[in-house]
Amino acid sequence: MDPAALAYLAAGIGAGLATIGAGYGIGRLSDSAMDGAARQPEAAGDIRGLMIVSAGLIEGVALFAVVICLLLVFLA
Amino acid sequence: MDPAALAYLAAGIGAGLATIGAGYGIGRLSDSAMDGAARQPEAAGDIRGLMIVSAGLIEGVALFAVVICLLLVFLA
Amino acid sequence: MDPAALAYLAAGIGAGLATIGAGYGIGRLSDSAMDGAARQPEAAGDIRGLMIVSAGLIEGVALFAVVICLLLVFLA
Amino acid sequence: MDPAALAYLAAGIGAGLATIGAGYGIGRLSDSAMDGAARQPEAAGDIRGLMIVSAGLIEGVALFAVVICLLLVFLA
Amino acid sequence: MDPAALAYLAAGIGAGLATIGAGYGIGRLSDSAMDGAARQPEAAGDIRGLMIVSAGLIEGVALFAVVICLLLVFLA
Amino acid sequence: MDPAALAYLAAGIGAGLATIGAGYGIGRLSDSAMDGAARQPEAAGDIRGLMIVSAGLIEGVALFAVVICLLLVFLA
Amino acid sequence: MDPAALAYLAAGIGAGLATIGAGYGIGRLSDSAMDGAARQPEAAGDIRGLMIVSAGLIEGVALFAVVICLLLVFLA
Amino acid sequence: MDPAALAYLAAGIGAGLATIGAGYGIGRLSDSAMDGAARQPEAAGDIRGLMIVSAGLIEGVALFAVVICLLLVFLA
Amino acid sequence: MDPAALAYLAAGIGAGLATIGAGYGIGRLSDSAMDGAARQPEAAGDIRGLMIVSAGLIEGVALFAVVICLLLVFLA
Amino acid sequence: MDPAALAYLAAGIGAGLATIGAGYGIGRLSDSAMDGAARQPEAAGDIRGLMIVSAGLIEGVALFAVVICLLLVFLA
Amino acid sequence: MDPAALAYLAAGIGAGLATIGAGYGIGRLSDSAMDGAARQPEAAGDIRGLMIVSAGLIEGVALFAVVICLLLVFLA
Amino acid sequence: MDPAALAYLAAGIGAGLATIGAGYGIGRLSDSAMDGAARQPEAAGDIRGLMIVSAGLIEGVALFAVVICLLLVFLA
Amino acid sequence: MDPAALAYLAAGIGAGLATIGAGYGIGRLSDSAMDGAARQPEAAGDIRGLMIVSAGLIEGVALFAVVICLLLVFLA
Amino acid sequence: MDPAALAYLAAGIGAGLATIGAGYGIGRLSDSAMDGAARQPEAAGDIRGLMIVSAGLIEGVALFAVVICLLLVFLA
Repeated sequence: MDPAALAYLAAGIGAGLATIGAGYGIGRLSDSAMDGAARQPEAAGDIRGLMIVSAGLIEGVALFAVVICLLLVFLA
Repeated sequence: MDPAALAYLAAGIGAGLATIGAGYGIGRLSDSAMDGAARQPEAAGDIRGLMIVSAGLIEGVALFAVVICLLLVFLA
Repeated sequence: MDPAALAYLAAGIGAGLATIGAGYGIGRLSDSAMDGAARQPEAAGDIRGLMIVSAGLIEGVALFAVVICLLLVFLA
Repeated sequence: MDPAALAYLAAGIGAGLATIGAGYGIGRLSDSAMDGAARQPEAAGDIRGLMIVSAGLIEGVALFAVVICLLLVFLA
Repeated sequence: MDPAALAYLAAGIGAGLATIGAGYGIGRLSDSAMDGAARQPEAAGDIRGLMIVSAGLIEGVALFAVVICLLLVFLA
Repeated sequence: MDPAALAYLAAGIGAGLATIGAGYGIGRLSDSAMDGAARQPEAAGDIRGLMIVSAGLIEGVALFAVVICLLLVFLA
Repeated sequence: MDPAALAYLAAGIGAGLATIGAGYGIGRLSDSAMDGAARQPEAAGDIRGLMIVSAGLIEGVALFAVVICLLLVFLA
Repeated sequence: MDPAALAYLAAGIGAGLATIGAGYGIGRLSDSAMDGAARQPEAAGDIRGLMIVSAGLIEGVALFAVVICLLLVFLA
Repeated sequence: MDPAALAYLAAGIGAGLATIGAGYGIGRLSDSAMDGAARQPEAAGDIRGLMIVSAGLIEGVALFAVVICLLLVFLA
Repeated sequence: MDPAALAYLAAGIGAGLATIGAGYGIGRLSDSAMDGAARQPEAAGDIRGLMIVSAGLIEGVALFAVVICLLLVFLA
Repeated sequence: MDPAALAYLAAGIGAGLATIGAGYGIGRLSDSAMDGAARQPEAAGDIRGLMIVSAGLIEGVALFAVVICLLLVFLA
Repeated sequence: MDPAALAYLAAGIGAGLATIGAGYGIGRLSDSAMDGAARQPEAAGDIRGLMIVSAGLIEGVALFAVVICLLLVFLA
Repeated sequence: MDPAALAYLAAGIGAGLATIGAGYGIGRLSDSAMDGAARQPEAAGDIRGLMIVSAGLIEGVALFAVVICLLLVFLA
Repeated sequence: MDPAALAYLAAGIGAGLATIGAGYGIGRLSDSAMDGAARQPEAAGDIRGLMIVSAGLIEGVALFAVVICLLLVFLA
């Protein structure tokens, strides 16, 4: 079997899984961020700060994974 | 096996998984956004801001994944 | 194996998975939208706006995925 | 293997998955619609409007997916 | 492999999955319909209307899927 | 491989999945029906009507699926 | 491969899945029936009637599925 | 492959799945039965009757499935 | 493939699945039995009777399944 | 394939599944036993009796399954 | 295929599954033990006794399973 | 099969799984962090410290896993 | 196939599963330990003792499993 | 098949599973730690101690597993 074949397979499925991970993580934390902002508007600035940091950490891993998938498409 | 065969397979399933990820993530956060807007209408502007940012982050990864799938269809 | 064979397989299963993603996401957010509209009828306009935006984002990814599947049927 | 064989397989399983997606989505939102209508009969018109729109969005993707499956049966 | 073999396989499993989808969806919404009718008997007419529409949408997709499966049995 | 082999396989597993679907759906709605009848005995007639309709819709799809499985046993 | 081999496989697994379906469905509804009977002993007759009907519907599909499995053992 | 090989495989796995089904179903209903008996000792007779009937229905399907598995061991 | 090979495989996995079934069922019902005995010590005798009967029914199916697995080891 | 190969495979996975079953069952019931003992110290003797009996039933099936796995290692 | 190959595979996966079983079981019961000890410090001795017995039963099965896996590594 | 083929496959899927792990873990803890910051703004500094440490531990393992995947792409 | 190949496969996946088991178990019990310590600071010593014992039992099985995996890497 | 091929596969997937385990475990316990610190700031030191110990135990197993995966990449 041509290595490129499995690389293509991995690229598609890996990108899909990475989206699930990012969707779950960011969905959950922004869920909580909006809950907090609705309950205590004066703490909104502090919450927004925490949200950006956490979302950045997840987004970083997710984009890293998606870039690996992109790399598999072109490099294989 | 032709590499294109597995690339096609990956494109279809990867796009499906990416939709699940985006659907879960955006479904969860807009669930919370509307909950907050119904409870505290005066915080709606702040909540809408947070929602757009988070949805954008998820949408970005999801579209990246879907574009990889599209790329697999044409490039393979 | 003919590449078209796996393309057909991917088209069917990918479309099914995309429907699950769209069904979960839109089902969850319109669940919350109707909950909010029943509790606070005066916030219904604001909620409807948020719902349309979020549903559009999910629908966009879902239709993108389904179009890729359709593309797999005709192009392969 | 004949491409038609996998196309038939995809048609059956894809249609089944699409039904699960539509069943979950519409089941969840009409669950919430009837809950709202039972709690606040005067908001029933507004809720029915939201329900029709959301159900239409899910139904659209689901029928799109089922039509792809039907297409796989006849075209393959 | 004979295409008919996989068509038969898809027919059986697809019909089973479609039943799961219809069972979940209709089970959930009629669960909520009876809950509402027990709590507010005077809203029973309105609830029954919503239930019939939603159940019809799910039943439509489910029967479409089952007919595809039946079609696979006879056509393959 | 003989097409009959996979038809037999599909018949057994499909019938099992259909039973899971029917068991979940009818189990959930009659769960709710008995809950409602225990809380409000005077609404029992209305609830019984809704239950029969919903159970009939699920039972219809389930029996359709099981008949397809039976058909696979004899026809294949 | 001998068709009988897969028929035997389907018979065993299908019967197991059908038991899971029946166990879930009847377990859930008799759970609710006994709950109702413990809370309102005077509604016990009405509840017992609903339970017998629902359990009969599930048991019907389950036995149908098990009979198909038995049929696969002897006919194949 | 010898048909007996898959028959043996089906017998073991099918019996295991049937035990899961029976364990879930009877575990759930006797859970509820003991809950009811602890809350209302005077309804214990009525509850015990309902429990025996329901457990009998599940046990019937489970033993039917296990007997099919036993049959696969000796007949194959 | 030697039929004994798959019989051995089925014996190990089937016994494991049967343990899961028995563990879930008996764990759940004795969970409820001890809950009831802690809340109402005077109903402990009645609860112990119900528990023994239910546990016996699950244990019966589980041991039946395990004996089939033992039988597969020696007979195959 | 050598029958011993699959027997070894079954021994390892079966033992793992049996541990999951025993862990779930005994974990759940002793969870409830300690809850009851903390709430009503005077019923501790009665609860300990019930716990020993139930844990013995689960442990019996689990050890039976593990012994089958041990038997597969030496006998195959 | 060399029997040792599958024995090695079984050893690794079986040990992993056994850890999941032990982790779930002991995690759940010590969760409850610490909850009870925090609520009623005077019952801590009784709870510690119950915890040791239950954890011993789970640990016994888990170590038995892990020893089987170790045995598969050296014996195969 | 070329070792590079499976290395590519592992890179894609492993990166996807690592994203799921990081997304779940960081999503859950920042969920709790923002909840705490909204409830007790004066403890925000202490909470932020705990969050950074925990997120760092998860991020460390996740990046380690993603780097292994990257390594698989270039080294294989 | 070389036995070493499957041994390597088992080592990687087994170590991953063992981490999931340990992560779930220790995560759950220290969750409860910190909950108890926050609610009743004076019982912290007793809780810490219980936590160390339970975590030790899980860690023991987990390290045993990971050592088996390490052994598979070097010995195979 | 080259042993290195499966070693690469195991490295990628094992690292992904280990990240899920670590993410779940540390996510859960730091969730609880921040909850406790927000509720009782004076117990924060005690909670931080417990958290570091537990997180260390999970991190230890996770890094052990990831190192095994790294080892598989270079050694195979």
